[in-house]
Amino acid sequence: MSNAIGKILISPGDTVGLESPTYLGALQAFTPYEPRYTAIDCDEDGVIPEALEQVLAEGCIKFIYLVPTFQNPSGRTLPLDRRRAIATLITRYNALLIEDDPYCDLRYEGNALPPIKSMAPEQVVYVGTLSKVFAPGLRIGYCVAPEPIRNWLVLVKQGVDLHTSSFNQALAAEYLEGGHLKQHLPHIIEIYRPRQKAILEALERYLPVGFQWSHPEGGMFVWVEGPEGVNMAEIYQAAVRRQVAFVPGHFFFAKPGDGQGTMRLNFTMPSPDEIDRAIQILGEVIRESSWRQESYESRGAEWQQNSPRAGLEVL
Amino acid sequence: MSNAIGKILISPGDTVGLESPTYLGALQAFTPYEPRYTAIDCDEDGVIPEALEQVLAEGCIKFIYLVPTFQNPSGRTLPLDRRRAIATLITRYNALLIEDDPYCDLRYEGNALPPIKSMAPEQVVYVGTLSKVFAPGLRIGYCVAPEPIRNWLVLVKQGVDLHTSSFNQALAAEYLEGGHLKQHLPHIIEIYRPRQKAILEALERYLPVGFQWSHPEGGMFVWVEGPEGVNMAEIYQAAVRRQVAFVPGHFFFAKPGDGQGTMRLNFTMPSPDEIDRAIQILGEVIRESSWRQESYESRGAEWQQNSPRAGLEVL
Repeated sequence: MSNAIGKILISPGDTVGLESPTYLGALQAFTPYEPRYTAIDCDEDGVIPEALEQVLAEGCIKFIYLVPTFQNPSGRTLPLDRRRAIATLITRYNALLIEDDPYCDLRYEGNALPPIKSMAPEQVVYVGTLSKVFAPGLRIGYCVAPEPIRNWLVLVKQGVDLHTSSFNQALAAEYLEGGHLKQHLPHIIEIYRPRQKAILEALERYLPVGFQWSHPEGGMFVWVEGPEGVNMAEIYQAAVRRQVAFVPGHFFFAKPGDGQGTMRLNFTMPSPDEIDRAIQILGEVIRESSWRQESYESRGAEWQQNSPRAGLEVL
Repeated sequence: MSNAIGKILISPGDTVGLESPTYLGALQAFTPYEPRYTAIDCDEDGVIPEALEQVLAEGCIKFIYLVPTFQNPSGRTLPLDRRRAIATLITRYNALLIEDDPYCDLRYEGNALPPIKSMAPEQVVYVGTLSKVFAPGLRIGYCVAPEPIRNWLVLVKQGVDLHTSSFNQALAAEYLEGGHLKQHLPHIIEIYRPRQKAILEALERYLPVGFQWSHPEGGMFVWVEGPEGVNMAEIYQAAVRRQVAFVPGHFFFAKPGDGQGTMRLNFTMPSPDEIDRAIQILGEVIRESSWRQESYESRGAEWQQNSPRAGLEVL
């Protein structure tokens, strides 16, 4: 869907407004159409409305792309007041927002939030999917767009793949009509919730001082930011050698060089016990990695204090 | 697949060599990347090797796109000697051929022919699909390409749709491994063969003198060419009003204005009886349509002779 949106909306040199970090797949889908990217300032609650207004006031944005709920990769969620503020801003500036919302049903605590689409329907292309709640292998998604954009999307999609698998569409329709998604969702949530709890506890237990991470209320990801000087390439190689994989965070930044000390951890696949062992290994690998010397020495004392290495088993 | 091929191979202004008429879906997939098209001269056996050599000798073709077997829309098939000649030519000129081959298994008479890919493997991207022999709704196709192109195709496909439905891939793998396609094919062929026979007989019976059509040994289509002056837009409207649909042939030509008196008839869906009635209606609609006066008058006598209208029922 992001590819089709890029194809119809982006001409070379157009500016697209993004969170930083943002979803890697959107960057991959948009970049072939040669946009420029403008990162909109974010904090732990996502896009800051004042920063968005500044970007909109400059008047050169083709569209804004946001994942407002349990963002990939950061896990962060725009609170209600920011959603309202963003809806007001895009209406005032007649701007177009792509609201990519694959994770909203995977909520483990807190209350559901309305999509921005519901507050500014004519300014928003809302994109959803069954991939995170039914089955990724079906490749069934959907899109609610203002009419002119919807008509272009239909045309472009036909050029790309003729049509979505009608077999899978029929299967999904049966699944939804039969109420199976509603029945299935609580089961997924009961599987994912303890995994999320396990990763947050394990990060607290095993990661050295100086590392910070997000505390999402749902979704699939925790975002980790290391202190300056951390050598993420080395950590990644060492972790994979010990069978622990993550996505180095710099892939989620449009600007080369950004996000060097960051990583995205997906907690939905392994069991709580596996998560505990994996984060323990990650903590060891981080401690064993080389740092820029000044960082290492200044943090040496804290590390000793906080080290959980003695007596722990690894995979 | 055509979309991904267009995306990696075509820069604006590149020249693509095509049959004329050619597959509409390929035109739709290539055109957004802004190629120029060169039509390679064809006769009732498809591309003429001498014409291809002339185009290749000019040295400015990015790739050639052919449907060598039971072509969509014309139904025509390149005979073995032409396949060999084309393989020799693309090897000599180090040219790239996209060999799109969805229909080769739907053969109702004659002997199977080897793909051009088998004669010049490094010059050919061979594209196949299960859509015409298993189920179109699965959206499962495949591609055998020289390695550098294959690597680009994988990358581009990931940017467009992340991946094909793994559920459908598993389903197709089971189907193939279990030998079900082999068992199923003779049944499809036994359904389609009498339909093809029916349409060829009906065209003979009901179409006015001056109309010609292809006599394919397989596939899904018969291609009809009307005499000069035929008003295809009017015939199309009148036929659809009487519940007979076809694709006006000009859609299959890259050059605007070409193919005005042509149509593609798909004979695989209706029963032989329905086909007979449909072609009867088509014949009537053609006779009732307005022509450019000079054509009409010069052909009036032939028509009277050949008219089957009296005593026939319509839907």
